Amino acid sequence: MDEVKVIEIKKSIFADNEIDADNLRKELKEKGVYLLNLMSSPGSGKTTTLIQTINRLKDKIRVAVMEADIDSDVDAIKIKEATGIESIQLHTGGMCHLDAEMTRQGLDNLTLQNTDLAILENVGNLVCPAEFDTGSCRNAMILSVPEGHDKPLKYPLMFSICDVVVINKIDVMPYFDFDLEKCTEYIHLRNPKAKVIPICAKTGEGVDVFAQWLLDEVKAWKE
Amino acid sequence: MDEVKVIEIKKSIFADNEIDADNLRKELKEKGVYLLNLMSSPGSGKTTTLIQTINRLKDKIRVAVMEADIDSDVDAIKIKEATGIESIQLHTGGMCHLDAEMTRQGLDNLTLQNTDLAILENVGNLVCPAEFDTGSCRNAMILSVPEGHDKPLKYPLMFSICDVVVINKIDVMPYFDFDLEKCTEYIHLRNPKAKVIPICAKTGEGVDVFAQWLLDEVKAWKE
Repeated sequence: MDEVKVIEIKKSIFADNEIDADNLRKELKEKGVYLLNLMSSPGSGKTTTLIQTINRLKDKIRVAVMEADIDSDVDAIKIKEATGIESIQLHTGGMCHLDAEMTRQGLDNLTLQNTDLAILENVGNLVCPAEFDTGSCRNAMILSVPEGHDKPLKYPLMFSICDVVVINKIDVMPYFDFDLEKCTEYIHLRNPKAKVIPICAKTGEGVDVFAQWLLDEVKAWKE
Repeated sequence: MDEVKVIEIKKSIFADNEIDADNLRKELKEKGVYLLNLMSSPGSGKTTTLIQTINRLKDKIRVAVMEADIDSDVDAIKIKEATGIESIQLHTGGMCHLDAEMTRQGLDNLTLQNTDLAILENVGNLVCPAEFDTGSCRNAMILSVPEGHDKPLKYPLMFSICDVVVINKIDVMPYFDFDLEKCTEYIHLRNPKAKVIPICAKTGEGVDVFAQWLLDEVKAWKE
């Protein structure tokens, strides 16, 4: 099994995360690095979605991934083994989210001069990560079919701050009471501009759409 | 559609949650009320599991439910409609967990003199709720099959503080790479004493075991 770099993230010392996040975005713009913040519940398929997406992008742009978890390094290893790209694990030491300074600690451990797209896989949590701007260019989230279509009603902030909502595990739709139309309606109630992309990360269905959106975003950012 | 009482929970003023939680447990013991704190990720099936469990218990003991969510009252209404028992909605106003004082605000709105078992359905979150003792007699959690068997590795605290781990949605096991044996091994790594109960809340399979455990617990508490 591959080994990956594991970074123990320290608590932030900055009082104003908003300012810090804006500063980080400016630095990334200067360096030509696009940062995506990917959020979801535990087990919605963030890592599998990333593997499929990265394998569609890695010949076109240079991608690196930071896997944030309270513990374990299984995700960073999975990404490295399945895609061959630079992948590091961030340990939050019990903390339920990442802010801009914590994200910066991760970025400092990537070789940014070789990176066009850096992806932060945030801690699996629909509540707290939504409250902290990580300094990312865009926020994306995954909602998986087994979680149910009512989640935008229950976790309003998360859905309101995400530019893209990926609906994963559409292959198991027949076994769950999931109404995609209703879900899209609830998402747009929270954020009328949110892009909704149904996919199945396991089979790859729909992933092209997400990959293309990300590619366009990175190109626009680097112009 | 039924209407339910909605309580807007206020932030706690108590500095020491541990002491406050112990005090709440003592008060509940005196009143003969057993409090269960039920936790999980969003969409793991807490509400459906509760409906099935309550319908097995409500002729034997008096049950009341507090549904905690950041927003919406769909869960409290669902419980009331499907079981007929007392069900109230707690709004946390963006807060990601409940502590003992916040739980007390909910309990104050239940008719405790008519309650043997009060169930708190905590905010859907595998991280923060684990850090706060709610004053409950026991902690239980639900892990659903689509979330994956590696969750005890990634969310160690949650699994270490739970007395019971209910594995839900076992009916869809054939469609997911979920290894129940490995999952049980990982759970016991975090908490060797944790009881693991596989169920399917949708069909009711296995729910008898969970209901019986809860019934025994309530009886022992009231002795």
